[in-house]
Amino acid sequence: MSLIDRKNPLVNVDVDGIIKKSITDHLKKTTAELPGDDLNESYVHEPKQFKQVTEFVSQKTKTAHTELYKGYIESLNKISSELDTAERGNANSRHSEYRSLKLDEVYNLNASWLHELYFANCFDPHSEIVMDSMSYLRLQRDFGTFDDWQRDFMACALSAGSGWAVLGYHMFLKKYVNFMISHHSGDVPVGFYPLIVVDMWEHAYYRDYLTDKKSYLISQMREFNWTVIEERFKKAEQIAQVVK
Amino acid sequence: MSLIDRKNPLVNVDVDGIIKKSITDHLKKTTAELPGDDLNESYVHEPKQFKQVTEFVSQKTKTAHTELYKGYIESLNKISSELDTAERGNANSRHSEYRSLKLDEVYNLNASWLHELYFANCFDPHSEIVMDSMSYLRLQRDFGTFDDWQRDFMACALSAGSGWAVLGYHMFLKKYVNFMISHHSGDVPVGFYPLIVVDMWEHAYYRDYLTDKKSYLISQMREFNWTVIEERFKKAEQIAQVVK
Amino acid sequence: MSLIDRKNPLVNVDVDGIIKKSITDHLKKTTAELPGDDLNESYVHEPKQFKQVTEFVSQKTKTAHTELYKGYIESLNKISSELDTAERGNANSRHSEYRSLKLDEVYNLNASWLHELYFANCFDPHSEIVMDSMSYLRLQRDFGTFDDWQRDFMACALSAGSGWAVLGYHMFLKKYVNFMISHHSGDVPVGFYPLIVVDMWEHAYYRDYLTDKKSYLISQMREFNWTVIEERFKKAEQIAQVVK
Amino acid sequence: MSLIDRKNPLVNVDVDGIIKKSITDHLKKTTAELPGDDLNESYVHEPKQFKQVTEFVSQKTKTAHTELYKGYIESLNKISSELDTAERGNANSRHSEYRSLKLDEVYNLNASWLHELYFANCFDPHSEIVMDSMSYLRLQRDFGTFDDWQRDFMACALSAGSGWAVLGYHMFLKKYVNFMISHHSGDVPVGFYPLIVVDMWEHAYYRDYLTDKKSYLISQMREFNWTVIEERFKKAEQIAQVVK
Repeated sequence: MSLIDRKNPLVNVDVDGIIKKSITDHLKKTTAELPGDDLNESYVHEPKQFKQVTEFVSQKTKTAHTELYKGYIESLNKISSELDTAERGNANSRHSEYRSLKLDEVYNLNASWLHELYFANCFDPHSEIVMDSMSYLRLQRDFGTFDDWQRDFMACALSAGSGWAVLGYHMFLKKYVNFMISHHSGDVPVGFYPLIVVDMWEHAYYRDYLTDKKSYLISQMREFNWTVIEERFKKAEQIAQVVK
Repeated sequence: MSLIDRKNPLVNVDVDGIIKKSITDHLKKTTAELPGDDLNESYVHEPKQFKQVTEFVSQKTKTAHTELYKGYIESLNKISSELDTAERGNANSRHSEYRSLKLDEVYNLNASWLHELYFANCFDPHSEIVMDSMSYLRLQRDFGTFDDWQRDFMACALSAGSGWAVLGYHMFLKKYVNFMISHHSGDVPVGFYPLIVVDMWEHAYYRDYLTDKKSYLISQMREFNWTVIEERFKKAEQIAQVVK
Repeated sequence: MSLIDRKNPLVNVDVDGIIKKSITDHLKKTTAELPGDDLNESYVHEPKQFKQVTEFVSQKTKTAHTELYKGYIESLNKISSELDTAERGNANSRHSEYRSLKLDEVYNLNASWLHELYFANCFDPHSEIVMDSMSYLRLQRDFGTFDDWQRDFMACALSAGSGWAVLGYHMFLKKYVNFMISHHSGDVPVGFYPLIVVDMWEHAYYRDYLTDKKSYLISQMREFNWTVIEERFKKAEQIAQVVK
Repeated sequence: MSLIDRKNPLVNVDVDGIIKKSITDHLKKTTAELPGDDLNESYVHEPKQFKQVTEFVSQKTKTAHTELYKGYIESLNKISSELDTAERGNANSRHSEYRSLKLDEVYNLNASWLHELYFANCFDPHSEIVMDSMSYLRLQRDFGTFDDWQRDFMACALSAGSGWAVLGYHMFLKKYVNFMISHHSGDVPVGFYPLIVVDMWEHAYYRDYLTDKKSYLISQMREFNWTVIEERFKKAEQIAQVVK
């Protein structure tokens, strides 16, 4: 039997006939004993509250930024709900409701999470990095020196148009790498756990800095909350153990 | 001091003055005791060997696909090497060597890894899913039924133009989700650990199936290697524990 | 009155109050005298028939290619019809029916037209370019030599991933330029009248040439229909007169 | 001879052997009689001066916007120069200098022209549309009513993320259509002559309007310079005659 024989296209195969399933002795366990037997509901996220204590960004920018973030959460919830009932059977790559929903899902999903990560890792005016923290040691290891990491991160940030600069742990490269993300969902590495996030969309800085995004960026870096970031590094190190 | 005062742009700040660093008692340890003190070299990947035992894809397609995969690995290595010495100081979002390299890096990086994942999770003609495996239980939990997962995965795959269908664990949603990826690096979720990957670029199926990508897709799903996939689920579950 | 006064946002302004309209003596003309007073209906396109006489592409590729082209026309018609009644009032950049329709419109519109241009300018096995044709003279003028144009066109084609190579007249640059288009609607110049089009999606060549897209490309170039192309050049020259 | 015979790949064909050339009697004309026989130099553009007389946008926004525009022109000139000597022979779709240059070319080319069109069609505080102008009649014809055009244009503008709203004449559809452009070169229709352009990047409005982009948009539309736009319509009508 070969699909390459074009006389028998498989388009009418019923879905439950595609993958063979087997039963083992373990199934004698009661359902209650099996892990994870509750259906996950479609996700509903509540926007979180973030203190933006910095003076490097104006109150108007902060308020507007929170408003944008809430818009993404709201869209994400709406999309999630619509996906629950979207027709799968006619999905195609030219024009279909399912495809449009999936495109909007990843756009709003990334936007929501990246904003949360950004609001949380900025801004602590009193923060400083401890030189034997995991953060410092890992950046030093993977970039040569801590300052080399800074230079690379700044280059990423200034290369992003409307987008993001992100330091993350890459599960294939098995190291920490900086990437720029275009908009919210373009040029994103697969398998990338984000640790330090700076918003480089114009809405993040234009009211306060106009075209001087370098000053904005430096102000953000000065006030990175290294307590928050260190917690993320600890998780990343655990993930590194899992995928090694 | 406020950056909002536009009279003092920060563009000439030296990089080592941006982030304050502190020293703790721990630094009395010798360098040797500190973890991770060796610099990671720029990455050099060797292409891996994959058995493609299926009859559902022709030998010519298999050989050509391997050739394409090797091309991505080769480009990735070249880009990695060029990034080592690329000028960071003039990076910008309109036109700069650094920006072009980062765009090509994520493109070839995703292409390399996704091909490896795909070659490894396809194709085992004798495979079947065990109904109390982690794979089965988690797909059932997060999609309602195993067949609902299949329907959603197929809709993803058929919605992707030149791109990928991927089941992954999403570290923000904290559940398993299907996504379609456009080309190699478009519409990619951040924080997404990939478990099941199907190549939906035309090079994967056009020689053998022409426009009938649904038959191609079904043939791939029939021969998923559930042993390989189950190992990935076990890692994903550990990651779920880390980020919960 | 200044919009910058944020106390008076304009969101509730009625649309017919936005742009001031005036009446002139010309309006004394009867409606019948005014040009263009019939409403254009939403567009419905019929797929065209193209002879693909070349032997450089297999019959299976030709048939499948025609099928793909018809799919784009069909989607374009469907989208056009849906756009007629789509809600404009809630259009937004995160998630709205109108936005999704416009994205799909440009994707299918470009796909439809580019395929028609491609089918028509390929393939004439007996064609040759006349050295004092407009085609030859203009390519020579804008690229230095005809062969330089060929080299640049081939570089464009081989740089396109899934996409197109297009020679066009650019109305801002006021010259003939080669561009590569990503997929159908990415990296497209504004104000670009297309003259020579080669499909570089994998479906155009993979069945017959596998990864050897250079041989495919050369075969297409050998059989360009210079009679068709010359007609396009004549139109482009007239457009050049309009925009000069 | 068939390229489908894979034993004779054409990769080593010399470029001047690809397309057959013939000579006609016309070549007896002297070179001086032939049109367009001077080689076009690589393009060098001077940024233009634009009066932005509106009060709806702050002086700081105007100055910064001019600065951004000049940056695109500068990059475009740099890219044009680099393209003159870029290696064509190794161009490929994964990683090549030629490909990166072409991507940056279209990005900066569109950005430059769209900004010029935008600066010129905005802003005339005293402008009004004449109801028997070509502008009015054509928008009425192709959108049903002038107000329907406005509603559609506003929906386009509000659907664009970082991008543009453009009314243009479409040479395949043979009518006037609104499109949104993503960033500078995404989701762009081929064969689209632009007539009315509004910048919807955040840099155009964020300093003055923060998230209230609808008020910004209305303020732009109120001050469209219909004298400038009418001139463009006259050219578009001539183009329509050429391509009909």
